[in-house]
Amino acid sequence: MAQNIYDDPAFFAGYSQLPRSIEGLASMPEWPSLQALLPNMKGRRVVDLGCGFGWFCRWARDEGAASVLGLDVSEKMLARGRSFPTDAAVTYAQADLEQLQLPPDTFDLAYSSLALHYVSDLARLLKTIRSALVDRGDFVFSTEHPIYMAARHPGWIVDAEGRKSWPVDSYQSEGRRITDWLAPGVVKYHRTMGTTLNALIAQGFSIRHVEEWGPTEAQVTADPALAEERERPMFLLVAARAS
Amino acid sequence: MAQNIYDDPAFFAGYSQLPRSIEGLASMPEWPSLQALLPNMKGRRVVDLGCGFGWFCRWARDEGAASVLGLDVSEKMLARGRSFPTDAAVTYAQADLEQLQLPPDTFDLAYSSLALHYVSDLARLLKTIRSALVDRGDFVFSTEHPIYMAARHPGWIVDAEGRKSWPVDSYQSEGRRITDWLAPGVVKYHRTMGTTLNALIAQGFSIRHVEEWGPTEAQVTADPALAEERERPMFLLVAARAS
Repeated sequence: MAQNIYDDPAFFAGYSQLPRSIEGLASMPEWPSLQALLPNMKGRRVVDLGCGFGWFCRWARDEGAASVLGLDVSEKMLARGRSFPTDAAVTYAQADLEQLQLPPDTFDLAYSSLALHYVSDLARLLKTIRSALVDRGDFVFSTEHPIYMAARHPGWIVDAEGRKSWPVDSYQSEGRRITDWLAPGVVKYHRTMGTTLNALIAQGFSIRHVEEWGPTEAQVTADPALAEERERPMFLLVAARAS
Repeated sequence: MAQNIYDDPAFFAGYSQLPRSIEGLASMPEWPSLQALLPNMKGRRVVDLGCGFGWFCRWARDEGAASVLGLDVSEKMLARGRSFPTDAAVTYAQADLEQLQLPPDTFDLAYSSLALHYVSDLARLLKTIRSALVDRGDFVFSTEHPIYMAARHPGWIVDAEGRKSWPVDSYQSEGRRITDWLAPGVVKYHRTMGTTLNALIAQGFSIRHVEEWGPTEAQVTADPALAEERERPMFLLVAARAS
Protein backbone atom coordinates (compact mmCIF):
# COMPACT_ATOMS: atom_id res chain seq x y z
CA MET A 1 0.00 0.00 0.00
CA ALA A 2 1.13 3.55 -0.71
CA GLN A 3 2.14 5.76 2.17
CA ASN A 4 -0.97 7.61 3.39
CA ILE A 5 0.71 10.75 4.60
CA TYR A 6 -2.52 12.69 4.19
CA ASP A 7 -4.01 11.02 7.27
CA ASP A 8 -0.98 12.01 9.37
CA PRO A 9 -2.40 14.61 11.82
CA ALA A 10 0.40 17.15 11.32
CA PHE A 11 0.32 16.75 7.53
CA PHE A 12 -3.46 17.00 7.38
CA ALA A 13 -3.45 20.10 9.58
CA GLY A 14 -0.86 21.75 7.33
CA TYR A 15 -2.55 20.64 4.12
CA SER A 16 -5.90 21.98 5.34
CA GLN A 17 -4.35 25.45 5.59
CA LEU A 18 -3.07 25.60 1.99
CA PRO A 19 -4.91 28.07 -0.24
CA ARG A 20 -5.76 25.24 -2.65
CA SER A 21 -7.45 23.39 0.22
CA ILE A 22 -9.38 26.36 1.56
CA GLU A 23 -10.22 28.17 -1.66
CA GLY A 24 -10.13 25.35 -4.21
CA LEU A 25 -9.33 25.44 -7.90
CA ALA A 26 -9.21 29.23 -8.30
CA SER A 27 -6.26 29.40 -5.92
CA MET A 28 -4.22 26.82 -7.88
CA PRO A 29 -1.96 28.81 -10.22
CA GLU A 30 -1.76 25.86 -12.62
CA TRP A 31 -5.55 25.46 -12.79
CA PRO A 32 -6.15 27.69 -15.86
CA SER A 33 -3.61 25.58 -17.79
CA LEU A 34 -5.08 22.33 -16.54
CA GLN A 35 -8.62 23.48 -17.28
CA ALA A 36 -7.60 24.35 -20.84
CA LEU A 37 -6.69 20.68 -21.37
CA LEU A 38 -10.08 19.38 -20.21
CA PRO A 39 -12.94 18.46 -22.52
CA ASN A 40 -16.38 19.98 -22.05
CA MET A 41 -17.84 18.33 -18.92
CA LYS A 42 -21.43 18.09 -20.16
CA GLY A 43 -22.73 14.54 -19.81
CA ARG A 44 -19.30 13.10 -19.00
CA ARG A 45 -18.72 10.30 -16.54
CA VAL A 46 -15.69 11.43 -14.58
CA VAL A 47 -13.27 9.81 -12.15
CA ASP A 48 -10.88 11.94 -10.08
CA LEU A 49 -7.83 10.02 -8.83
CA GLY A 50 -6.62 11.64 -5.62
CA CYS A 51 -9.60 13.95 -5.19
CA GLY A 52 -8.61 15.46 -1.85
CA PHE A 53 -11.36 17.75 -0.62
CA GLY A 54 -13.32 17.21 -3.84
CA TRP A 55 -13.00 20.69 -5.32
CA PHE A 56 -12.61 19.32 -8.84
CA CYS A 57 -15.42 16.78 -8.38
CA ARG A 58 -17.89 19.50 -7.46
CA TRP A 59 -16.64 21.80 -10.24
CA ALA A 60 -17.04 19.01 -12.82
CA ARG A 61 -20.61 18.39 -11.66
CA ASP A 62 -21.39 22.12 -11.74
CA GLU A 63 -20.09 22.15 -15.33
CA GLY A 64 -22.55 19.43 -16.30
CA ALA A 65 -20.75 16.12 -15.72
CA ALA A 66 -23.27 13.25 -15.57
CA SER A 67 -21.46 11.60 -12.68
CA VAL A 68 -18.25 12.14 -10.75
CA LEU A 69 -16.43 9.57 -8.66
CA GLY A 70 -13.83 11.03 -6.34
CA LEU A 71 -11.19 8.60 -5.07
CA ASP A 72 -8.65 9.23 -2.35
CA VAL A 73 -6.53 7.15 -0.01
CA SER A 74 -7.26 9.50 2.86
CA GLU A 75 -10.46 9.07 4.83
CA LYS A 76 -9.90 12.49 6.38
CA MET A 77 -9.78 14.11 2.95
CA LEU A 78 -12.90 12.25 1.84
CA ALA A 79 -14.76 13.23 5.02
CA ARG A 80 -13.97 16.86 4.32
CA GLY A 81 -15.09 16.42 0.73
CA ARG A 82 -18.39 14.89 1.79
CA SER A 83 -19.01 17.83 4.12
CA PHE A 84 -19.51 20.19 1.16
CA PRO A 85 -22.99 20.40 -0.33
CA THR A 86 -23.46 18.65 -3.69
CA ASP A 87 -25.85 16.07 -5.12
CA ALA A 88 -26.03 12.29 -5.51
CA ALA A 89 -24.19 12.36 -8.85
CA VAL A 90 -20.97 13.10 -6.95
CA THR A 91 -19.71 10.17 -4.89
CA TYR A 92 -16.53 9.61 -2.97
CA ALA A 93 -14.73 6.38 -2.16
CA GLN A 94 -11.54 5.34 -0.42
CA ALA A 95 -8.96 3.86 -2.80
CA ASP A 96 -5.24 3.21 -2.85
CA LEU A 97 -3.92 4.15 -6.31
CA GLU A 98 -1.27 1.41 -6.00
CA GLN A 99 -3.99 -1.23 -5.93
CA LEU A 100 -6.80 0.53 -7.73
CA GLN A 101 -9.39 -1.53 -9.53
CA LEU A 102 -12.04 0.07 -11.73
CA PRO A 103 -14.77 -1.42 -13.91
CA PRO A 104 -13.91 -1.41 -17.65
CA ASP A 105 -15.35 1.07 -20.18
CA THR A 106 -17.00 3.16 -17.49
CA PHE A 107 -15.57 6.69 -17.67
CA ASP A 108 -15.23 9.38 -20.32
CA LEU A 109 -12.64 11.34 -18.38
CA ALA A 110 -10.02 10.43 -15.81
CA TYR A 111 -8.49 13.38 -13.96
CA SER A 112 -5.72 13.52 -11.42
CA SER A 113 -4.18 16.54 -9.74
CA LEU A 114 -0.78 16.12 -8.06
CA ALA A 115 -1.29 12.52 -6.99
CA LEU A 116 0.66 10.34 -9.46
CA HIS A 117 4.04 11.18 -7.92
CA TYR A 118 2.93 9.25 -4.82
CA VAL A 119 2.44 6.11 -6.90
CA SER A 120 5.25 3.59 -7.23
CA ASP A 121 3.79 1.37 -9.97
CA LEU A 122 2.70 3.86 -12.59
CA ALA A 123 2.39 1.30 -15.40
CA ARG A 124 -0.12 -0.73 -13.37
CA LEU A 125 -2.20 2.35 -12.61
CA LEU A 126 -2.17 3.55 -16.23
CA LYS A 127 -3.34 0.14 -17.39
CA THR A 128 -6.23 0.34 -14.93
CA ILE A 129 -7.13 3.85 -16.09
CA ARG A 130 -6.97 2.92 -19.78
CA SER A 131 -9.23 -0.06 -19.17
CA ALA A 132 -11.72 2.05 -17.20
CA LEU A 133 -11.94 4.66 -19.97
CA VAL A 134 -14.09 4.30 -23.03
CA ASP A 135 -12.28 4.43 -26.39
CA ARG A 136 -11.38 8.06 -27.15
CA GLY A 137 -11.77 8.84 -23.45
CA ASP A 138 -9.52 11.51 -21.95
CA PHE A 139 -6.92 11.37 -19.24
CA VAL A 140 -5.77 14.76 -17.98
CA PHE A 141 -3.39 15.03 -15.07
CA SER A 142 -0.81 17.07 -13.24
CA THR A 143 2.12 15.62 -11.34
CA GLU A 144 5.29 16.99 -9.81
CA HIS A 145 7.85 17.67 -12.52
CA PRO A 146 10.96 15.48 -12.49
CA ILE A 147 13.19 18.58 -12.60
CA TYR A 148 11.61 19.53 -9.27
CA MET A 149 11.86 16.03 -7.82
CA ALA A 150 15.12 14.55 -9.06
CA ALA A 151 17.74 16.05 -6.76
CA ARG A 152 18.73 14.30 -3.57
CA HIS A 153 18.66 17.68 -1.80
CA PRO A 154 16.17 19.87 -3.67
CA GLY A 155 16.08 23.58 -2.92
CA TRP A 156 17.19 26.89 -4.44
CA ILE A 157 20.91 27.51 -4.78
CA VAL A 158 22.25 31.06 -4.80
CA ASP A 159 25.76 31.49 -6.15
CA ALA A 160 28.39 34.07 -5.20
CA GLU A 161 26.98 36.56 -7.73
CA GLY A 162 23.47 36.17 -6.31
CA ARG A 163 22.21 34.08 -9.23
CA LYS A 164 19.46 31.67 -8.21
CA SER A 165 19.15 28.21 -9.73
CA TRP A 166 17.55 24.86 -8.96
CA PRO A 167 19.85 21.84 -8.71
CA VAL A 168 19.30 18.75 -10.81
CA ASP A 169 21.16 15.55 -10.00
CA SER A 170 20.32 11.85 -9.92
CA TYR A 171 17.91 12.45 -12.80
CA GLN A 172 18.36 8.93 -14.18
CA SER A 173 17.97 7.36 -10.71
CA GLU A 174 14.25 6.80 -10.70
CA GLY A 175 12.41 5.77 -7.58
CA ARG A 176 11.84 6.94 -4.03
CA ARG A 177 12.47 10.48 -2.91
CA ILE A 178 11.87 11.33 0.72
CA THR A 179 11.24 14.96 1.53
CA ASP A 180 9.86 17.04 4.36
CA TRP A 181 6.73 18.89 3.25
CA LEU A 182 4.16 19.73 5.91
CA ALA A 183 5.44 16.64 7.75
CA PRO A 184 8.76 14.79 7.75
CA GLY A 185 9.31 11.70 5.60
CA VAL A 186 6.91 12.25 2.73
CA VAL A 187 7.56 9.52 0.14
CA LYS A 188 7.35 10.40 -3.55
CA TYR A 189 8.52 8.61 -6.70
CA HIS A 190 10.77 10.30 -9.23
CA ARG A 191 10.33 9.32 -12.86
CA THR A 192 11.80 11.00 -15.93
CA MET A 193 9.39 12.70 -18.29
CA GLY A 194 10.30 10.07 -20.86
CA THR A 195 9.27 7.28 -18.51
CA THR A 196 5.89 8.88 -17.82
CA LEU A 197 5.16 9.60 -21.49
CA ASN A 198 6.37 6.20 -22.70
CA ALA A 199 4.28 4.46 -20.02
CA LEU A 200 1.21 6.29 -21.33
CA ILE A 201 2.02 5.32 -24.93
CA ALA A 202 2.68 1.69 -23.91
CA GLN A 203 -0.75 1.47 -22.28
CA GLY A 204 -2.54 2.71 -25.37
CA PHE A 205 -2.74 6.44 -24.85
CA SER A 206 -1.85 9.02 -27.44
CA ILE A 207 -0.19 12.18 -26.16
CA ARG A 208 -2.25 15.28 -26.93
CA HIS A 209 -0.42 17.97 -24.94
CA VAL A 210 2.52 18.26 -22.58
CA GLU A 211 2.95 21.35 -20.44
CA GLU A 212 5.75 22.08 -18.02
CA TRP A 213 3.78 24.65 -16.13
CA GLY A 214 5.00 28.18 -15.55
CA PRO A 215 3.10 31.31 -14.52
CA THR A 216 1.81 33.95 -16.93
CA GLU A 217 2.93 37.58 -16.71
CA ALA A 218 -0.45 38.47 -15.25
CA GLN A 219 -0.08 35.81 -12.55
CA VAL A 220 3.36 37.08 -11.56
CA THR A 221 2.05 40.66 -11.45
CA ALA A 222 -0.79 39.55 -9.18
CA ASP A 223 1.47 37.36 -7.04
CA PRO A 224 5.18 38.25 -7.35
CA ALA A 225 6.13 35.14 -5.34
CA LEU A 226 5.24 33.10 -8.43
CA ALA A 227 8.20 34.61 -10.35
CA GLU A 228 10.50 31.82 -9.24
CA GLU A 229 8.24 29.29 -10.95
CA ARG A 230 9.65 30.63 -14.23
CA GLU A 231 13.09 29.37 -13.29
CA ARG A 232 12.27 25.66 -13.19
CA PRO A 233 9.00 23.77 -13.67
CA MET A 234 7.37 22.39 -10.54
CA PHE A 235 4.40 20.78 -12.28
CA LEU A 236 4.01 18.61 -15.35
CA LEU A 237 0.59 18.71 -17.03
CA VAL A 238 -0.39 16.09 -19.59
CA ALA A 239 -3.45 15.48 -21.75
CA ALA A 240 -3.68 11.99 -23.24
CA ARG A 241 -6.39 10.15 -25.11
CA ALA A 242 -7.29 6.47 -24.97
CA SER A 243 -6.67 5.32 -28.53
CA MET B 1 19.82 32.44 -41.92
CA ALA B 2 20.99 30.35 -38.99
CA GLN B 3 24.45 30.91 -37.59
CA ASN B 4 26.87 28.65 -39.46
CA ILE B 5 29.37 28.09 -36.68
CA TYR B 6 30.51 24.86 -38.28
CA ASP B 7 32.34 26.75 -41.01
CA ASP B 8 34.23 28.82 -38.42
CA PRO B 9 37.86 27.60 -38.77
CA ALA B 10 38.45 27.18 -35.02
CA PHE B 11 35.11 25.44 -34.52
CA PHE B 12 35.60 23.16 -37.50
CA ALA B 13 39.11 22.24 -36.33
CA GLY B 14 37.79 21.39 -32.86
CA TYR B 15 34.76 19.54 -34.17
CA SER B 16 36.93 17.48 -36.51
CA GLN B 17 38.81 16.15 -33.47
CA LEU B 18 35.74 14.90 -31.59
CA PRO B 19 35.43 11.10 -31.38
CA ARG B 20 32.04 11.28 -33.05
CA SER B 21 33.65 13.06 -35.99
CA ILE B 22 36.63 10.73 -36.33
CA GLU B 23 35.03 7.41 -35.43
CA GLY B 24 31.39 8.02 -36.29
CA LEU B 25 28.26 6.47 -34.83
CA ALA B 26 29.96 3.82 -32.68
CA SER B 27 31.64 6.55 -30.63
CA MET B 28 28.35 8.36 -29.86
CA PRO B 29 27.19 7.06 -26.48
CA GLU B 30 23.57 7.87 -27.34
CA TRP B 31 23.72 5.99 -30.67
CA PRO B 32 22.44 2.60 -29.37
CA SER B 33 19.36 4.37 -27.96
CA LEU B 34 18.83 6.37 -31.13
CA GLN B 35 19.33 3.31 -33.31
CA ALA B 36 16.69 1.44 -31.28
CA LEU B 37 14.15 4.09 -32.32
CA LEU B 38 14.85 3.72 -36.03
CA PRO B 39 12.82 1.57 -38.41
CA ASN B 40 14.49 -1.05 -40.58
CA MET B 41 16.38 0.85 -43.28
CA LYS B 42 15.70 -1.58 -46.13
CA GLY B 43 14.23 0.25 -49.11
CA ARG B 44 13.67 3.49 -47.20
CA ARG B 45 14.13 6.93 -48.67
CA VAL B 46 15.97 8.82 -45.99
CA VAL B 47 16.79 12.48 -45.32
CA ASP B 48 19.35 13.45 -42.65
CA LEU B 49 18.94 17.01 -41.37
CA GLY B 50 22.31 18.26 -40.18
CA CYS B 51 24.31 15.34 -41.57
CA GLY B 52 27.79 16.61 -40.63
CA PHE B 53 30.41 14.23 -41.99
CA GLY B 54 27.71 11.86 -43.23
CA TRP B 55 28.30 8.96 -40.86
CA PHE B 56 24.59 8.26 -40.52
CA CYS B 57 23.98 8.66 -44.27
CA ARG B 58 26.54 5.99 -45.09
CA TRP B 59 25.31 3.73 -42.29
CA ALA B 60 21.72 3.99 -43.54
CA ARG B 61 22.81 3.09 -47.06
CA ASP B 62 24.87 0.16 -45.75
CA GLU B 63 21.74 -1.01 -43.92
CA GLY B 64 19.78 -1.06 -47.17
CA ALA B 65 18.23 2.39 -47.52
CA ALA B 66 17.13 3.00 -51.11
CA SER B 67 18.40 6.57 -51.06
CA VAL B 68 19.87 8.95 -48.52
CA LEU B 69 19.97 12.73 -48.78
CA GLY B 70 22.34 14.39 -46.31
CA LEU B 71 21.72 18.08 -45.67
CA ASP B 72 23.99 20.44 -43.80
CA VAL B 73 24.52 24.19 -43.62
CA SER B 74 28.30 23.72 -43.59
CA GLU B 75 30.13 23.29 -46.88
CA LYS B 76 33.18 22.14 -44.94
CA MET B 77 31.20 19.35 -43.31
CA LEU B 78 29.68 18.32 -46.64
CA ALA B 79 33.09 18.30 -48.33
CA ARG B 80 34.39 15.96 -45.65
CA GLY B 81 31.29 13.78 -46.04
CA ARG B 82 31.78 13.58 -49.81
CA SER B 83 35.40 12.49 -49.29
CA PHE B 84 34.30 9.12 -47.87
CA PRO B 85 33.61 6.33 -50.35
CA THR B 86 29.95 5.48 -50.92
CA ASP B 87 27.66 5.16 -53.96
CA ALA B 88 25.32 7.36 -55.98
CA ALA B 89 22.35 6.57 -53.72
CA VAL B 90 23.92 8.82 -51.07
CA THR B 91 23.86 12.50 -51.97
CA TYR B 92 24.74 15.60 -50.01
CA ALA B 93 23.41 19.14 -50.36
CA GLN B 94 23.87 22.44 -48.61
CA ALA B 95 20.75 23.59 -46.76
CA ASP B 96 19.87 26.02 -43.98
CA LEU B 97 17.33 24.32 -41.70
CA GLU B 98 15.76 27.74 -40.98
CA GLN B 99 14.75 28.05 -44.63
CA LEU B 100 14.58 24.43 -45.69
CA GLN B 101 12.29 23.44 -48.52
CA LEU B 102 11.70 19.82 -49.43
CA PRO B 103 9.43 18.19 -52.03
CA PRO B 104 6.22 16.72 -50.54
CA ASP B 105 5.65 12.98 -49.92
CA THR B 106 9.24 12.09 -50.76
CA PHE B 107 10.80 10.45 -47.71
CA ASP B 108 10.02 7.46 -45.47
CA LEU B 109 12.36 8.59 -42.72
CA ALA B 110 13.66 11.94 -41.54
CA TYR B 111 16.59 11.77 -39.13
CA SER B 112 18.40 14.50 -37.28
CA SER B 113 21.23 14.20 -34.77
CA LEU B 114 21.94 17.20 -32.53
CA ALA B 115 20.95 19.86 -35.03
CA LEU B 116 17.48 21.07 -34.05
CA HIS B 117 18.75 23.15 -31.12
CA TYR B 118 20.44 25.43 -33.66
CA VAL B 119 17.06 26.17 -35.29
CA SER B 120 15.06 29.19 -34.19
CA ASP B 121 11.78 28.45 -35.98
CA LEU B 122 11.09 24.83 -35.06
CA ALA B 123 7.41 24.91 -36.07
CA ARG B 124 8.33 25.95 -39.62
CA LEU B 125 10.90 23.17 -39.90
CA LEU B 126 8.54 20.52 -38.51
CA LYS B 127 5.88 21.56 -41.00
CA THR B 128 8.42 21.13 -43.81
CA ILE B 129 9.48 17.71 -42.49
CA ARG B 130 5.89 16.52 -42.09
CA SER B 131 5.07 17.55 -45.63
CA ALA B 132 8.18 15.83 -47.00
CA LEU B 133 7.33 12.55 -45.26
CA VAL B 134 4.86 10.03 -46.60
CA ASP B 135 1.91 9.19 -44.34
CA ARG B 136 3.13 6.90 -41.57
CA GLY B 137 6.69 8.07 -42.23
CA ASP B 138 9.07 8.31 -39.29
CA PHE B 139 10.91 11.23 -37.78
CA VAL B 140 13.64 10.25 -35.32
CA PHE B 141 15.88 12.88 -33.80
CA SER B 142 18.16 13.87 -30.99
CA THR B 143 18.57 17.40 -29.69
CA GLU B 144 20.17 19.01 -26.68
CA HIS B 145 17.94 18.54 -23.64
CA PRO B 146 16.37 21.70 -22.20
CA ILE B 147 17.66 20.79 -18.73
CA TYR B 148 21.15 21.03 -20.22
CA MET B 149 20.42 24.23 -22.12
CA ALA B 150 18.15 26.33 -19.93
CA ALA B 151 20.54 27.96 -17.45
CA ARG B 152 22.11 31.31 -18.18
CA HIS B 153 25.41 29.94 -16.85
CA PRO B 154 25.38 26.18 -17.40
CA GLY B 155 28.04 24.06 -15.71
CA TRP B 156 28.40 21.70 -12.78
CA ILE B 157 27.97 23.13 -9.29
CA VAL B 158 29.70 21.48 -6.33
CA ASP B 159 28.33 22.41 -2.92
CA ALA B 160 30.17 22.63 0.41
CA GLU B 161 29.59 18.91 1.04
CA GLY B 162 31.05 17.99 -2.35
CA ARG B 163 27.66 17.17 -3.90
CA LYS B 164 27.56 17.81 -7.62
CA SER B 165 24.47 19.14 -9.36
CA TRP B 166 23.50 20.89 -12.59
CA PRO B 167 21.78 24.27 -12.30
CA VAL B 168 18.43 24.92 -13.93
CA ASP B 169 17.13 28.46 -14.21
CA SER B 170 15.30 30.50 -16.84
CA TYR B 171 13.55 27.31 -17.94
CA GLN B 172 10.44 29.16 -19.12
CA SER B 173 12.52 31.79 -20.96
CA GLU B 174 12.72 30.15 -24.32
CA GLY B 175 15.00 31.44 -27.03
CA ARG B 176 18.65 32.21 -27.65
CA ARG B 177 21.41 30.79 -25.52
CA ILE B 178 24.98 31.76 -26.33
CA THR B 179 27.71 29.44 -25.13
CA ASP B 180 31.35 28.79 -25.78
CA TRP B 181 31.84 25.29 -27.19
CA LEU B 182 34.85 24.72 -29.45
CA ALA B 183 34.54 28.41 -30.37
CA PRO B 184 33.09 31.43 -28.56
CA GLY B 185 29.57 32.65 -29.23
CA VAL B 186 27.79 29.50 -30.37
CA VAL B 187 24.07 30.34 -30.71
CA LYS B 188 21.51 27.72 -29.66
CA TYR B 189 17.79 27.91 -28.97
CA HIS B 190 16.29 26.71 -25.72
CA ARG B 191 12.81 25.22 -25.84
CA THR B 192 10.97 23.35 -23.13
CA MET B 193 10.25 19.68 -23.75
CA GLY B 194 6.57 20.58 -23.82
CA THR B 195 7.15 23.09 -26.61
CA THR B 196 9.04 20.55 -28.74
CA LEU B 197 6.48 17.78 -28.21
CA ASN B 198 3.47 20.06 -28.72
CA ALA B 199 5.03 21.46 -31.90
CA LEU B 200 5.34 17.90 -33.24
CA ILE B 201 1.72 17.13 -32.32
CA ALA B 202 0.51 20.41 -33.85
CA GLN B 203 2.21 19.54 -37.17
CA GLY B 204 0.53 16.14 -37.37
CA PHE B 205 3.04 13.84 -35.70
CA SER B 206 2.15 11.26 -33.09
CA ILE B 207 4.71 10.75 -30.34
CA ARG B 208 6.03 7.18 -30.28
CA HIS B 209 8.89 7.41 -27.80
CA VAL B 210 10.62 10.06 -25.69
CA GLU B 211 14.01 9.36 -24.16
CA GLU B 212 16.04 11.63 -21.95
CA TRP B 213 19.27 9.86 -22.66
CA GLY B 214 21.49 8.48 -19.92
CA PRO B 215 24.30 5.91 -20.10
CA THR B 216 23.90 2.22 -19.30
CA GLU B 217 25.88 0.53 -16.53
CA ALA B 218 28.04 -1.13 -19.18
CA GLN B 219 28.79 2.22 -20.81
CA VAL B 220 29.85 3.76 -17.50
CA THR B 221 32.04 0.75 -16.76
CA ALA B 222 33.70 1.11 -20.16
CA ASP B 223 34.01 4.90 -19.86
CA PRO B 224 33.73 6.17 -16.25
CA ALA B 225 33.59 9.79 -17.48
CA LEU B 226 30.05 9.04 -18.64
CA ALA B 227 28.88 8.65 -15.02
CA GLU B 228 27.98 12.34 -14.78
CA GLU B 229 25.49 11.89 -17.61
CA ARG B 230 23.30 10.07 -15.09
CA GLU B 231 22.94 13.25 -13.07
CA ARG B 232 21.13 15.31 -15.68
CA PRO B 233 20.14 14.54 -19.27
CA MET B 234 22.21 16.19 -21.99
CA PHE B 235 20.28 14.75 -24.94
CA LEU B 236 16.60 14.37 -25.75
CA LEU B 237 15.73 11.57 -28.19
CA VAL B 238 12.30 11.45 -29.85
CA ALA B 239 10.60 9.09 -32.24
CA ALA B 240 7.49 10.48 -33.94
CA ARG B 241 5.30 9.27 -36.77
CA ALA B 242 3.54 11.29 -39.44
CA SER B 243 -0.10 10.54 -38.80
